[in-house]
Amino acid sequence: MSDLILHILYVIAITAEAMTATLAAGRRSMDWVGVCLLAAVTALGGGSVRDVLLGHHPLVWIVHPEYLLVVVVAALSAIAVARFMEQLRSLFLFLDAIGLVVFTILGCNVALEMELPVVVVIVAGMITGCIGGVLRDILCNDVPLLFRSELYASVSVVTGILYMGGLHLGLPHDAVMFGAMGAGLALRLLALRFGWNMPKFVYDKDFH
Amino acid sequence: MSDLILHILYVIAITAEAMTATLAAGRRSMDWVGVCLLAAVTALGGGSVRDVLLGHHPLVWIVHPEYLLVVVVAALSAIAVARFMEQLRSLFLFLDAIGLVVFTILGCNVALEMELPVVVVIVAGMITGCIGGVLRDILCNDVPLLFRSELYASVSVVTGILYMGGLHLGLPHDAVMFGAMGAGLALRLLALRFGWNMPKFVYDKDFH
Amino acid sequence: MSDLILHILYVIAITAEAMTATLAAGRRSMDWVGVCLLAAVTALGGGSVRDVLLGHHPLVWIVHPEYLLVVVVAALSAIAVARFMEQLRSLFLFLDAIGLVVFTILGCNVALEMELPVVVVIVAGMITGCIGGVLRDILCNDVPLLFRSELYASVSVVTGILYMGGLHLGLPHDAVMFGAMGAGLALRLLALRFGWNMPKFVYDKDFH
Repeated sequence: MSDLILHILYVIAITAEAMTATLAAGRRSMDWVGVCLLAAVTALGGGSVRDVLLGHHPLVWIVHPEYLLVVVVAALSAIAVARFMEQLRSLFLFLDAIGLVVFTILGCNVALEMELPVVVVIVAGMITGCIGGVLRDILCNDVPLLFRSELYASVSVVTGILYMGGLHLGLPHDAVMFGAMGAGLALRLLALRFGWNMPKFVYDKDFH
Repeated sequence: MSDLILHILYVIAITAEAMTATLAAGRRSMDWVGVCLLAAVTALGGGSVRDVLLGHHPLVWIVHPEYLLVVVVAALSAIAVARFMEQLRSLFLFLDAIGLVVFTILGCNVALEMELPVVVVIVAGMITGCIGGVLRDILCNDVPLLFRSELYASVSVVTGILYMGGLHLGLPHDAVMFGAMGAGLALRLLALRFGWNMPKFVYDKDFH
Repeated sequence: MSDLILHILYVIAITAEAMTATLAAGRRSMDWVGVCLLAAVTALGGGSVRDVLLGHHPLVWIVHPEYLLVVVVAALSAIAVARFMEQLRSLFLFLDAIGLVVFTILGCNVALEMELPVVVVIVAGMITGCIGGVLRDILCNDVPLLFRSELYASVSVVTGILYMGGLHLGLPHDAVMFGAMGAGLALRLLALRFGWNMPKFVYDKDFH
């Protein structure tokens, strides 16, 4: 049952990631193929990088190529409804936040199954949650937003720590998992609402 | 026999890719080592990313390090003859187009041997054909041309679909393979000649 | 004994790489999480890319997650002492040069243990030594310095060639290893001191 919920949330999340990536592609005037590629990299790139780094084969979209189709359909739909997405901005930020915590938990689970050290489990969650957006920004030739935006990576780390902490305390798995996701989601939404940021480090000398 | 032809075309293709990458490096005033690295990443990067994503080890240039030497020699030669390459622009665009379809077919073949789903086979072909140029553009700090240029990725997808379709119909392997390559090549050359493009998606609002 | 020295030099090197990456992050006004991520990618990225390309799992930081903590502590320390790092510029360039040759030798050793061809061993050393900085520059949205700076990649290649050459001649392993490292270090420091550069290739026409 919790697997099913997680799976549904995952499909919603990759759809939302693909649709917001489409708008990023549109700001760079990419063609439709470029849009689909950027959407696929954004939605599925975090999990792919995690699996490649952990040596966890085959990758998700190789076993389930239907996710590639989900992403392409989401991207083409976003082109069609782009003019209305502006009004739905809050909805997409909400779905993106859900994606962040769902990706994080799924990434932790992969590392947990491989019985990796707890620090690596949390890093695996963060890679899954955040790297898709980093790849999108690199392909759009931007400095990754992640490095500057509202607690994005921090939310992923906090979610992972709560998840691992709860499991370590022997609490029931599903309660811990949804609790960690809820807490991470709340933190991200509060950060968006009140513009919370990590302190920035500003250094203006040329060192190298 | 068809293996030999494919192999010869592959060597021609990595040579051409390395030589055009050299000109891209020259526009960024890279030094000779940078030129060789950019040439190697451009010519061998697509296949490497494919193999890493598919978990298909060892990579081509690890089994055949002579390809690294081919690429380096091609890059250094391109520095020597750069002033004449402008006149040979059509030849290099032609060789690049051959590279695109050859890389695509070779990528499909790797995925076919691994008995992966047909969608993944076509994606593997596209990754092999297109990602080398994407890596080149990222390293040169450009928005990847792929996302905006004449049917580049589309040609790769069409080539892969024709190849898989022909095999699915039970047609003779070599006829299907060279037929798909010829059709892809023709499509790319027509796109270059007549400036065909996929429709672009332009979106100018700041969403994130 | 030589293993212990190499290990100590490795920890010094990732610390130095993480600290200089922190200053690069500061020039982009990244937040503290972004700083830590950039430091980790810079210090551990070269070895990770090498292991992923060679199919050499598990990666170093997965077996030794304590290195992740070293990198994070180094990055946060660099934020604290940034104002003093300018005066220590020579020290950090020296430590970075040590990192370059240590990473190179460690990368060669991984490929040697896998009994890969000699060209691949040298390439594995260069990837380990140089790619961390390339990833840092990509994430900061710069054209990688590597492609233009004082013999950086060349020093790595020379170190690898001396190492492999000495082993090929049957000289004692440790003498060859520290000799190659010393020669590479000297070359890099001389290049920094006298501004030695590889010849640049400048090409100003638009080819594609």
